[in-house]
Amino acid sequence: MSIIDQLNWRYAAKRYNGQKISAQKLNTILEAIRLSASSLGLQPYSVIVIEDPELRKQLAPAASNQPQITEASHLLVFAAWENITLEKIDEYLKQTAEIRNVSLESLSTLKSYLHQMLNAPVEQTFHWNARQAYIALGTALVAAAAEQVDATPMEGFDGLQFDSLLGLNEKSLKSVALLAIGYRDEKNDWSVNLPKVRRDKEKLFIHLKHIEEKAA
Amino acid sequence: MSIIDQLNWRYAAKRYNGQKISAQKLNTILEAIRLSASSLGLQPYSVIVIEDPELRKQLAPAASNQPQITEASHLLVFAAWENITLEKIDEYLKQTAEIRNVSLESLSTLKSYLHQMLNAPVEQTFHWNARQAYIALGTALVAAAAEQVDATPMEGFDGLQFDSLLGLNEKSLKSVALLAIGYRDEKNDWSVNLPKVRRDKEKLFIHLKHIEEKAA
Repeated sequence: MSIIDQLNWRYAAKRYNGQKISAQKLNTILEAIRLSASSLGLQPYSVIVIEDPELRKQLAPAASNQPQITEASHLLVFAAWENITLEKIDEYLKQTAEIRNVSLESLSTLKSYLHQMLNAPVEQTFHWNARQAYIALGTALVAAAAEQVDATPMEGFDGLQFDSLLGLNEKSLKSVALLAIGYRDEKNDWSVNLPKVRRDKEKLFIHLKHIEEKAA
Repeated sequence: MSIIDQLNWRYAAKRYNGQKISAQKLNTILEAIRLSASSLGLQPYSVIVIEDPELRKQLAPAASNQPQITEASHLLVFAAWENITLEKIDEYLKQTAEIRNVSLESLSTLKSYLHQMLNAPVEQTFHWNARQAYIALGTALVAAAAEQVDATPMEGFDGLQFDSLLGLNEKSLKSVALLAIGYRDEKNDWSVNLPKVRRDKEKLFIHLKHIEEKAA
């Protein structure tokens, strides 16, 4: 199945049938998230993996009781770092030096780019971290489709409540998006056969040639 | 090649060899972007597709003359809507009604969710729009890898200068990320053989069971 077929196959399932995805498929989706691109390679987020039905039942009211929360096989919570700290940067530089078998001193250019992040206002940094998490979310969506696993990205939830229930504040994390994964409930999902709506390519893409065109 | 192999194959190429990607591969990458998931299906961004060498030469100084800008086959500029307007929402609802062959009235729930966005502060809406663009960026990265096309996501550029040079202000768009696509220059890219650095899964993922665990 080509990536286009996979993307056409996928949709944001509204109902799940409770069937579990295999450990192998879950691992593939998580590994795809782990391999996602991120600016400067920092990956300034964590992903909380929740299978426990009891915990998901407790979370559901903070997501308007959308059935995906409890019916899916697993719920992933993408949580961005609240901020970037010197400690996090040092940890990343140390890991990079180890994996690449080079000295920390040889990473001075990367280090200076990373240290520039420390001067940005916290809110700006958080927005940057959240965007990086969304690259991983995009990657996860394709990975799930490649594994023929349904996946529903969700933003309709109370982040503060999620953070509190999941103990994310203590970890300096803020939840930014949910991803329910599992298998669609074809019988009960009213949206299962709806044609996909996407902007026409003529509207979504702007093919620019010379700068003069902008005045046209 | 599995999606994991594709993600391991890809890296953020620092140098490109100027070779053009085929129209078929370009179309696949653009179609993957077009099919990307987005909250409420709104796709609040555009993607500017630039092949023209002259235009890329003019843009390069606003991206610290990073060689990917001019050496790649194409440069994609992901640009988020500055805001969400009633007009944009109406256009989307009309398209949805047409594609699904339903009345506009039957879309009242979707409409009310979309109208809630109109009440948010402009800056918050822009951040939301930018995050949606990053889902598409993540999708594009996987699509390029699936096509064995190299791709470099780039944030190190002067957005205001890009917006001005590309005439994006008049289109109420703001550039948020670049994606150079083409073929790596194996001979001149110092980073081509560097091992990939990614956070260990034990650090990136938090497997939560009961809420009580958070106190552990």
